[in-house]
Amino acid sequence: MSHNLLKGKKGIIFGALNEQSLAWQTALKCHEEGAQIVLTNAPIALRMGEINKLAEAINAPIIGADVTKMEDLAALIDQSMEHFGGKIDFILHSVGMSMNIRKGNPYTHLNHEWELKTLDISAVSFHRVLQVAYEKDALNEWASVVALTYIAAQRVFPDYNEMADAKSLLESIARSFGYHYGIKNKVRVNTISQSPTRTTAGSGVKGFDGFINFSEAMSPLGNASAEAFAGYCVTLFSDLTKYVTMQNLYHDGGYSSTGVTQPVVDKMASE
Amino acid sequence: MSHNLLKGKKGIIFGALNEQSLAWQTALKCHEEGAQIVLTNAPIALRMGEINKLAEAINAPIIGADVTKMEDLAALIDQSMEHFGGKIDFILHSVGMSMNIRKGNPYTHLNHEWELKTLDISAVSFHRVLQVAYEKDALNEWASVVALTYIAAQRVFPDYNEMADAKSLLESIARSFGYHYGIKNKVRVNTISQSPTRTTAGSGVKGFDGFINFSEAMSPLGNASAEAFAGYCVTLFSDLTKYVTMQNLYHDGGYSSTGVTQPVVDKMASE
Amino acid sequence: MSHNLLKGKKGIIFGALNEQSLAWQTALKCHEEGAQIVLTNAPIALRMGEINKLAEAINAPIIGADVTKMEDLAALIDQSMEHFGGKIDFILHSVGMSMNIRKGNPYTHLNHEWELKTLDISAVSFHRVLQVAYEKDALNEWASVVALTYIAAQRVFPDYNEMADAKSLLESIARSFGYHYGIKNKVRVNTISQSPTRTTAGSGVKGFDGFINFSEAMSPLGNASAEAFAGYCVTLFSDLTKYVTMQNLYHDGGYSSTGVTQPVVDKMASE
Amino acid sequence: MSHNLLKGKKGIIFGALNEQSLAWQTALKCHEEGAQIVLTNAPIALRMGEINKLAEAINAPIIGADVTKMEDLAALIDQSMEHFGGKIDFILHSVGMSMNIRKGNPYTHLNHEWELKTLDISAVSFHRVLQVAYEKDALNEWASVVALTYIAAQRVFPDYNEMADAKSLLESIARSFGYHYGIKNKVRVNTISQSPTRTTAGSGVKGFDGFINFSEAMSPLGNASAEAFAGYCVTLFSDLTKYVTMQNLYHDGGYSSTGVTQPVVDKMASE
Repeated sequence: MSHNLLKGKKGIIFGALNEQSLAWQTALKCHEEGAQIVLTNAPIALRMGEINKLAEAINAPIIGADVTKMEDLAALIDQSMEHFGGKIDFILHSVGMSMNIRKGNPYTHLNHEWELKTLDISAVSFHRVLQVAYEKDALNEWASVVALTYIAAQRVFPDYNEMADAKSLLESIARSFGYHYGIKNKVRVNTISQSPTRTTAGSGVKGFDGFINFSEAMSPLGNASAEAFAGYCVTLFSDLTKYVTMQNLYHDGGYSSTGVTQPVVDKMASE
Repeated sequence: MSHNLLKGKKGIIFGALNEQSLAWQTALKCHEEGAQIVLTNAPIALRMGEINKLAEAINAPIIGADVTKMEDLAALIDQSMEHFGGKIDFILHSVGMSMNIRKGNPYTHLNHEWELKTLDISAVSFHRVLQVAYEKDALNEWASVVALTYIAAQRVFPDYNEMADAKSLLESIARSFGYHYGIKNKVRVNTISQSPTRTTAGSGVKGFDGFINFSEAMSPLGNASAEAFAGYCVTLFSDLTKYVTMQNLYHDGGYSSTGVTQPVVDKMASE
Repeated sequence: MSHNLLKGKKGIIFGALNEQSLAWQTALKCHEEGAQIVLTNAPIALRMGEINKLAEAINAPIIGADVTKMEDLAALIDQSMEHFGGKIDFILHSVGMSMNIRKGNPYTHLNHEWELKTLDISAVSFHRVLQVAYEKDALNEWASVVALTYIAAQRVFPDYNEMADAKSLLESIARSFGYHYGIKNKVRVNTISQSPTRTTAGSGVKGFDGFINFSEAMSPLGNASAEAFAGYCVTLFSDLTKYVTMQNLYHDGGYSSTGVTQPVVDKMASE
Repeated sequence: MSHNLLKGKKGIIFGALNEQSLAWQTALKCHEEGAQIVLTNAPIALRMGEINKLAEAINAPIIGADVTKMEDLAALIDQSMEHFGGKIDFILHSVGMSMNIRKGNPYTHLNHEWELKTLDISAVSFHRVLQVAYEKDALNEWASVVALTYIAAQRVFPDYNEMADAKSLLESIARSFGYHYGIKNKVRVNTISQSPTRTTAGSGVKGFDGFINFSEAMSPLGNASAEAFAGYCVTLFSDLTKYVTMQNLYHDGGYSSTGVTQPVVDKMASE
C-alpha cells in the first residue's frame, strides 16, 4: 500500500547486504513509494552476490565503490546521475567496519592503525560522499541525506567498542556538512539512531544478543525493526520533512528517553 | 496532492486560532491527507469565531474545552469518540498562555500565582488531556500525540520569559506520559520544537521580531513555516513513524545545531 | 582537613532534615571549609527538631520559611543578611515534596491540584528564592546558587512519578534565572543531578531500592554519596568555578553516560 | 593564595606553548595548589623553547613526545613515574592540529589524508595516552584525566572546520575510556568545553575574533579566561569531584545555555 511519497525521486543506497539489512529494507520501501534507486556497496561485499536479488526486485543497478576512495565515489555519483538522467534526491549511508572488533581487541587495547581505518570507513566515508556530491553539484535542492548511527555515540555500551567513537564522529560530520550543504542547496543531512537489530553488521559485535534483550526490555514500544526503519527513512526522504536537518533522530521505541523499566527493575531485584 | 497518509484516521486538534496558527495549518493538512478532525479551543477563544471558517473547510465539529478542567476534557473526548464512532488516532496540543508576559512582568519579577496559571494552562493541561484519554481508553493502539514546544526550553531567550519554563515542563510530561502510554497501548507522545513563526500567540512576546530575524539568520534552511510544520506533523501522525516516541524533535531548519553563521558573525563585526 | 575554600563566605542551606540529607552533609562541609551558614526549612520540618543538632555543630541559626510564601522568604533573606552583617555568597536549594507520591497516585492518575502543589514547592520555590534575593540585591557578585535535581528530568524512571516533571521545571528555572542574575551581578546558578541516595526524601518513593541498586550497577564509579555531594557543592560555591553557570551537572559516578554495564547485561541474560 | 587542593599529587600536562595557553596557566595553578608536574609537548614545539620559562618557574621536567607514537607516550609515562617516584594522579590533554585549516581548505573541500591526521593528533592521541597509562597501570586510584574541547562538537561554527569533528571524537573517547578506566581503577575522565580564548592554537582559525566577540556577547558572564580554566581544572583534579566522570563540562560563562542576549538582538535589529 504505497503512498507515492517518493514519486519521481532518485536515490543512492549504501550498505544493503542481505534481507536483514536496514539498507535492504529501505531500498524496498523507497521503491514501493515510487523512487528509483541505485545500490552500492564495497566491491568485496558485492562478490557475495546476494544483493543481486534485491537489485532485480527493485530494478536497480549496482555500482561498486570503495568508500575510502574519492575516485570510486566520483564514479558512483557520475554513473548514478547518468542512470537517473539527472540529479539525486536522497542518499542512505549505512556503512561500518571495525577491524579491532573483528580481531577481538578490547577498547583498552586497540590497534590504532585499525582504529583510524574504522574511523575512515565508518565515518570519514560519509564526508567523502557528501564532498563528492557537493563538488559535482549532484544533489537537487532539498535533497535529503541520512546516515545510520547508534546511541553508543552518547552513552557507553562496552561491547560496541571503538564503533561508538566512529558513530560520534559520523554524527558530527552530519551536522557540519548539513550546515554547509543547507546553505548552498537546501540539502538536509541527518542521522537516525536506530534500535539494535539482528543484522550481519551487528552480529560481529560480542554480546550483541545482550544488547538486544536489554534494549527490548528498556524500550516502551520495543526495539524498532528494519522494516520500521525503512518507513521512517521514507518520511525523511520525502518533502514533508524539509526543515529537519543537522539532527540525530532516535528511532528506538522510546529507549533513549527511558531511565529504567519495571521489567528491568524486577530483574535487578531478583537473586 | 494528497498522499492519503492519514486515510481513515481521526484526530483532535487544539489551538487553531486563525490562518497563521500552526494548529490551523495542521488541521488543513491532516484533512487533505484523509483524516477526520475535531477542533477544540478555549470557550473564550471560540467566541472570536474565526475558527468557524476552518471548521467548514474541513467539515469538522468544534467542541469548546477549558484545558484546566478535567470535566471539559472528559466531555471533549466523549463527544469526539461519539462523533468519530470510535477511538482516536492522533492529538495535537498547541496551547499556551502567560499572564506575566501579557502584563509585562519581567522574568525576575513574576507574579507567582500567574506563573502557576501559566504552567497549568500551557503544560499541565497536556497531562490532563493524556490522563483523560488514558482513563477512558480513548486512543487506538499506535495513536500519536504531539505537543508544540520551543527551544527556549533548552536555552534562554530572555523575552520568552516564563514560557520557557512551561515548555520544559511540557516536554517532560511528554516523556513521562509517553512511557506509560507506550507500555499500555503503544501510544507515541512527542514534542515538536518549531522555529518561531509570526502567530497570534507569538506576537504577544516582546521583541518577537528580533527572535524571528535572529532565528532566520541562524538557520541554514531558514525558519520553518506553519505549512511546513503541518507536513511534519502529518508524518508523525502517520504509520511510518511508529517507533518514534518520547522525543523532542527540532523542526527548525537546522537552528538548534548551529552555533553561528557567517551573516551573524559579519553583523557582530560591524560598527 | 580543610582547604579553606569558602573562607569568609556566607550561605543559606535549605532542606537539612537529618544526617542522611545531602543538605546536612553540605552544611557540615561548608562549615569545615570556612563558611558561615544559615539553615532553613519548612516550619513543619523544624518541629521534628533534629536539625538543632546540626545547628549547634556548625554554630548556625535556624530560620523557618515556607518556600511557597514570598513573605517568609523575604524574612529569611533579611534575617540572614542581618545575621551575616552583609550579603550572601551561596545558596543550596534542596527542597521537594509530592502529595501524589505520598498518596500513591500513579503518574497516569494524578490529582492535578496536588501536581500544581508539587511544582510549586519543588520548583517554583526556587524561582521565589532567587526573585526575593534579586529584588533585595542580597547576593554578592559571583555568588553561587545550586539546586538539587535528578536525571529523571531527562529520562523516565516510572516510580519517580511527577517529581520528574518538577525537576525538569526546576532545571529550566535555574537556566532562566541564571541568565538574568548572571548579567546583573555575575551570580551563577546551576543544578547538580545527583545519584540516588538513601535519604528521607528518597524513601518516600516506591521501589526506591530498585532505583539505587540499578543505579549502582550502572555507574562505573558507583553511586555518589551525600558526603561526596557535599564536596562537589563546595567546589561550585568556591571561587574556582566562577564561569560555570546555567548548567545541569551530573554527579553520578558516570551513570548518565553509561548505556549498559557488564553486570546488568549478565543479569538480563540470566534465567 | 593556595588552598593546597593538589598537595602531594603528581600530574602530566600536555600542550603548554606560551603564557596564553590554557595548559600553561593550568600548570602554574596546579603547582600553586601543591602538585608536582611533568610538562610535555611535541618535539617540534619544544624547539621553540618558550616552555623552558614555565618549566623553571614550577620546577618541572620537560619530556618531549609525539602523541601519534605509542613508543613516545610509553617513554613519557615511564620517565614521569620515575621522576615522581610513583604513579600519576592527573593528566591534562590540550592537543590539537589541523592541516586543512592551516592550508585554508574549507570544510566542503577537505584533503581526507589530512583529515585523518587531524583526527589522529587531536583525538586518537587521547586514546593512546589513556591506553598507555592503562597498560602500564600508571594511574593512581581516583586519578583524574581532563581533555580540552569546544562546543563546536555540538553546534556548527563554520570556521572551526574539521576540528569540530575531531572534538566530537575526542569527547566520545573520553566517555568510552572513562567507562573502562572507572571500572578498573576508579579513574575519572572528563572533557572541559571552554570559551574561545586568544591562544596560539585559536589564532590559526580564520575569523577567530568573530568567534570571540560573538561568544562574549552571548555569555551572561562573558568568556572564561585561561586563568579561570586553570582554576576549574584544579577542582576536577582534586578529591572534591571524585564522582564526576564521563562528562563534557561547559566552562563558558553560560554561553551553552543561552539562546540569545539583548546585545545580540539589538545588533541584529540595527541597519
